[in-house]
Amino acid sequence: MSRTAVLLVDCPDAKGIVASVSTFLYSHGANILGSDQHQDNQAGLFFMRVEFDLTDFTLDAPNFAREFQPIAGRYQMQWRLEDTASRARVALFVSRHQHCLVDLLHRHQTGELPGGEIALIISNHPDARPLAEFYRVPFHHVPVDGARNLAAEAEQIRLLDGNTVHLIVLARYMQVLSPEFVARYPLRIINVHHSFLPAFSGAKPYHAAFERGVKLIGATSHYVTDELDAGPIIEQDVARISHRDQVEQLIAKGRDLEKAVLSRAVRWHLEHRILFYGNKTVVFD
Amino acid sequence: MSRTAVLLVDCPDAKGIVASVSTFLYSHGANILGSDQHQDNQAGLFFMRVEFDLTDFTLDAPNFAREFQPIAGRYQMQWRLEDTASRARVALFVSRHQHCLVDLLHRHQTGELPGGEIALIISNHPDARPLAEFYRVPFHHVPVDGARNLAAEAEQIRLLDGNTVHLIVLARYMQVLSPEFVARYPLRIINVHHSFLPAFSGAKPYHAAFERGVKLIGATSHYVTDELDAGPIIEQDVARISHRDQVEQLIAKGRDLEKAVLSRAVRWHLEHRILFYGNKTVVFD
Amino acid sequence: MSRTAVLLVDCPDAKGIVASVSTFLYSHGANILGSDQHQDNQAGLFFMRVEFDLTDFTLDAPNFAREFQPIAGRYQMQWRLEDTASRARVALFVSRHQHCLVDLLHRHQTGELPGGEIALIISNHPDARPLAEFYRVPFHHVPVDGARNLAAEAEQIRLLDGNTVHLIVLARYMQVLSPEFVARYPLRIINVHHSFLPAFSGAKPYHAAFERGVKLIGATSHYVTDELDAGPIIEQDVARISHRDQVEQLIAKGRDLEKAVLSRAVRWHLEHRILFYGNKTVVFD
Amino acid sequence: MSRTAVLLVDCPDAKGIVASVSTFLYSHGANILGSDQHQDNQAGLFFMRVEFDLTDFTLDAPNFAREFQPIAGRYQMQWRLEDTASRARVALFVSRHQHCLVDLLHRHQTGELPGGEIALIISNHPDARPLAEFYRVPFHHVPVDGARNLAAEAEQIRLLDGNTVHLIVLARYMQVLSPEFVARYPLRIINVHHSFLPAFSGAKPYHAAFERGVKLIGATSHYVTDELDAGPIIEQDVARISHRDQVEQLIAKGRDLEKAVLSRAVRWHLEHRILFYGNKTVVFD
Repeated sequence: MSRTAVLLVDCPDAKGIVASVSTFLYSHGANILGSDQHQDNQAGLFFMRVEFDLTDFTLDAPNFAREFQPIAGRYQMQWRLEDTASRARVALFVSRHQHCLVDLLHRHQTGELPGGEIALIISNHPDARPLAEFYRVPFHHVPVDGARNLAAEAEQIRLLDGNTVHLIVLARYMQVLSPEFVARYPLRIINVHHSFLPAFSGAKPYHAAFERGVKLIGATSHYVTDELDAGPIIEQDVARISHRDQVEQLIAKGRDLEKAVLSRAVRWHLEHRILFYGNKTVVFD
Repeated sequence: MSRTAVLLVDCPDAKGIVASVSTFLYSHGANILGSDQHQDNQAGLFFMRVEFDLTDFTLDAPNFAREFQPIAGRYQMQWRLEDTASRARVALFVSRHQHCLVDLLHRHQTGELPGGEIALIISNHPDARPLAEFYRVPFHHVPVDGARNLAAEAEQIRLLDGNTVHLIVLARYMQVLSPEFVARYPLRIINVHHSFLPAFSGAKPYHAAFERGVKLIGATSHYVTDELDAGPIIEQDVARISHRDQVEQLIAKGRDLEKAVLSRAVRWHLEHRILFYGNKTVVFD
Repeated sequence: MSRTAVLLVDCPDAKGIVASVSTFLYSHGANILGSDQHQDNQAGLFFMRVEFDLTDFTLDAPNFAREFQPIAGRYQMQWRLEDTASRARVALFVSRHQHCLVDLLHRHQTGELPGGEIALIISNHPDARPLAEFYRVPFHHVPVDGARNLAAEAEQIRLLDGNTVHLIVLARYMQVLSPEFVARYPLRIINVHHSFLPAFSGAKPYHAAFERGVKLIGATSHYVTDELDAGPIIEQDVARISHRDQVEQLIAKGRDLEKAVLSRAVRWHLEHRILFYGNKTVVFD
Repeated sequence: MSRTAVLLVDCPDAKGIVASVSTFLYSHGANILGSDQHQDNQAGLFFMRVEFDLTDFTLDAPNFAREFQPIAGRYQMQWRLEDTASRARVALFVSRHQHCLVDLLHRHQTGELPGGEIALIISNHPDARPLAEFYRVPFHHVPVDGARNLAAEAEQIRLLDGNTVHLIVLARYMQVLSPEFVARYPLRIINVHHSFLPAFSGAKPYHAAFERGVKLIGATSHYVTDELDAGPIIEQDVARISHRDQVEQLIAKGRDLEKAVLSRAVRWHLEHRILFYGNKTVVFD
C-alpha cells in the first residue's frame, strides 16, 4: 500500500471548481484514487473529497498550502489536507454499559478503523478496566458526581491534552458534558444516542419509545454541541419491534443499533469522510 | 373456502383464560385455523385472537353471545366476534396527492384487502374523480375552507351515515378533523402521517426532516384521536436518505413509505388483527 | 428549469481524466449541477457521470462530439451525451399481473419518471386494456403461444420499430424472449424477477423460496441478456417473512418488492444513471 | 424471577389440541406466561410453544410425562418439556476470524444468552486462546489438516462428550465436518454461512457475490445437516452494497450480518423457540 492523502473542500458553488482542483492535483502528479462531490443547488454550496496516491505527488504539506492558496482564495474555500498515514488519536469515554466499547475495541484490533489509534479509555466507573487491559489500552477511572463534576472534567482535559487526543468518542458515556468542555473539542466529540433523533431525545429513550408504542426503535450517532442531542447527525438506524417486546427487549435490540451507528460514525470520521454545513453532515461513504 | 369467524378478546391476565376459551370453542365444534395470544406481564393484560372455521360450529351470533357470557364475565373480558364474510364498508378521504388512493384502489381490486369494500371516496378537491370512476367507486367532492369547515363535516357525516361506513381511511387527506367528527368514529379513522412519529408531527414533516439532517425518513399509520398525530400507532417504516436528497426526493421516497404503512394498517384493521391498550396497539399479523 | 445534459464516460483508469473532462466542460461554459465518479482500482476502470446546465454552454451535440474527440481518444473513452429534454420512448410489456403496470403508469403520470414517455403497452392478454385506456396509452394485444411465438415477436418488433422505442420494460411479462429479440435491444430491456437473484432463478421462485424455508424473500430488476435471469443486476430488495406466511403471502409481499425494484431501475435508466462493466452495473443514484 | 418451563409440541393438526393442552396445564396449576401456536393448514401440521411459571405447578418432570401421555398419544404429538433453569452447555468452534466469537462471548457475559453456558471453545488455530482466557472459557486447540481430519474429529468428540455439550456453534469454523460427526449431533449444530442462502453456497461467497454484481449481501444461520449449506435455515439478514464496495468491503459489512444472524439463532435455540418440519424451521420469537 502506498501512502495516500485526502483533500476536503467546501465553498460556495461556482463554475470551474472541479476543473481547478483536479487540474491542480494532476499537474502536481497526484494519482486520484477516488473522488466525491456534492452540490447543494438550493443552498449554493459545493463539497468535495478527493483521495489520491502520494507516490508521484510533488508537494509536501507546506508547499501544498502555498501552491493551493490561489485556488482556495478565488473560490472562498474551506479546505484541509489529511495524510492517511497519520492516525488520529482517539479517547473512548464509557460508563457502565460496555457493548459499544467491546465493539470498537475489537473493530480496531481487526483493522476496521484504520484511520485511528485508541489512545486511552476514560470511565466514571472502574468496570471496564479488565477489558481495557486485555486490549492493552490505558484506562483511567475518573469518578463523576454532582459536586466533583468540574474537577472530573479538569482531570479528563488533563488526560486528553497529555495524550494529544484528536477525537473523543462517547461510547455510552452517560454524563452530560459542560458547555466549556464541548467548546474545547468542536465537531470532535461523537456521541451515540439510543433513539431515532429527534424523537425521544433526553433521558430513557427506550422507556419513552415503549410508552408511545412505536413499531421501530432507533439509534443515532452525532457530533456533540451545546444543545443536548441536537448536534449534526452522522448516522441512524432502526430495528422493528412488536407488542411482544418489553422495555428490556427494546434495550437489547437497541444495543446492536448503537454499536452499528457509532462504529460507522467513528470510521467515517477517521477516514475524513464527513463534511458540515449548518447543523448537517455530508458523508462521502 | 368455507366461512370463518374471528374472536378477539382482551382482559386482565389470569390463569385459565386460554383453557376456558379454547375448550368453549372446541366444545361447540370450532375448527381453529389460527390463534395468537399476547400477555403483557408488566401491565397484567391478556390479548387473544382466534380465527376458526364455522362449518361445524354450532352457535350463531346471538347464541354465541349468550353462551360465551359466563366466561367473558368471569375474566372481565372485552370481546367481539367478527364474521369474516361480512365486509366492512370503507370511506377513503383524499386531498390532492393520489398515490395512496391509487395504491389502495388497486390492492382492493386485486383482492389484497378482502375484509372490506370501498363504499365511497370523499375529497376536498375534484381531481380524483376520474380515478374513482375508473374503479367504479362513488366520488363526492366536498370542498373545505375555513368558513365552510363545519358545513363540510356535516356533509361528510351525511355521506358516511348514508353509506353505513365502518372505517374511514385518510389517504393523504390534508384537512384537520374536528374533535366532534373524530368522536363519532372512535378507533375507526386511520391516518397516514408522513414522518416517523413522534418525530416531526404536524405540518411539513419532510421539510422539517430535511432541515434537521436526519439520515432516514419515515411514515406512520395510526388511529386518529383528539390530539394531532398522537393516536395509537399501527405501523411505521423508514427509508434511507443521504445528502444527495433534497426535499423533493424526500417527498418522492416518502410516498412509497406512505403507501406501505397505510395499506398494511387498512388490511390489518379489516382482518381484525388490531387490539388496543392505552394508546398502543397489539397487531397480530 | 433550464435545459440540462448528462455526460457519461467510462474508460481505463488513468491520471488526468477528471482534470481533462472538467476543464473541457468549464472552458465551454458548462455549469455543473452534479458529478459522480467511480474508480474500480482492482479492474483499473474509471466511470463518470456529469450533469450540467446548458444555458451558457457553447457547444451543440455535433460540435461537442468534434471538440471532445481528442480527450475521448487519448483516454480510450466510451462516452455519450444525453439531452435530458429528449425523453426516451418506453414500451411496457405485461402479462396477467398488473401491479407493476399500475405502479409505473401512476408514477409516470405524477412525474416520477421524467426521463421517459410511455409509448405503448404490449400484452399477451387483453386484461390490461382498460387500464391502458384510462392512462391514454396505446394498448396492443399480441397473443403468444408455442406455435405462434415467432409471429408474436415479429408483431412486437413491428410495433416497437413503428413507435421508435428506446427502452422495453418487462413489467411482469411472463414469456421468454428469443435470443434474436434480445439481441435487437442490447441493454435496453429491463426485467423484474421475483426472487433475490441468483437464488431461485427460473420459474415459480416464490414456491421455491417457500420450499427452501428462507426467512427473507426478494426481487431483482436486471437487464435482459441471452442467459435467463443472468443479466446485469440493477436493483434488489428484500422483505422479511415468517413461518406464518404461506406461498400466497409470499406472492403478496413480493408484489411490493417487484414494484419497488422495477420502478427504481426504470427511473435510473431514464435518468442515465447506469453504466456497465462486464456483467455488472454502476448506478449513480 | 420464579422458575419457568417451556413446553414444545408438534403434531398433525386436529380439533381440540389447544383446549386439551391448555386445560391440562391449567388443571395442574401452570401460570402461562406466553403461548405461541402455528398451524400450517396446507401441510396439516400444528406447532405450539407454551412458557409457564412453575411456582404453583403440581407436576415434576416424570409425573408430567406420565400425566401428559394420554394427550400426547391421542394427537400423535412430538413434545418436550424444558426447564429454563437448566442451562444448555455450548461448544463454540472457531477458525481464524474471531468476530462472531467476540460477539457471542460478550453477549453471554452480559446476559443476552441466558439459556446456555459456554462450556468450551475448540479451534483449529491457536489465535483465540487469549480471548478465551479473558472470558475464562476453556480453550482447546485441535489442529486439522487433510491427513489428521479423522483424528481431529475424534479429539473434538472426546472433548464434547467429556463436557456434556448440548449445542455446537460453528462461529466461523471453516472446516467441513464429516457426515459421521454431523450424525452424532442432529439439529444440534448451528452454522453461519456468509451468504444469503441458497445463493452462493460453498466457498468464498463474498467473492462470488462481488462477481455476480448483486446489490445486497447476506448471511444465514442454519442447522448443519449432511448436505453442505442445505440444512434448515434459522435466520437471515442482508445489507446494501454498491459499486463502491470491493470484496474487502463486502467482507467487512458481512461480518456484522454474520454476528447478527448467528447470535439470534443461538439465542432462539437456547430459549427453545425453534421447531422443525421437513427442512424448515418455525421460530417463535
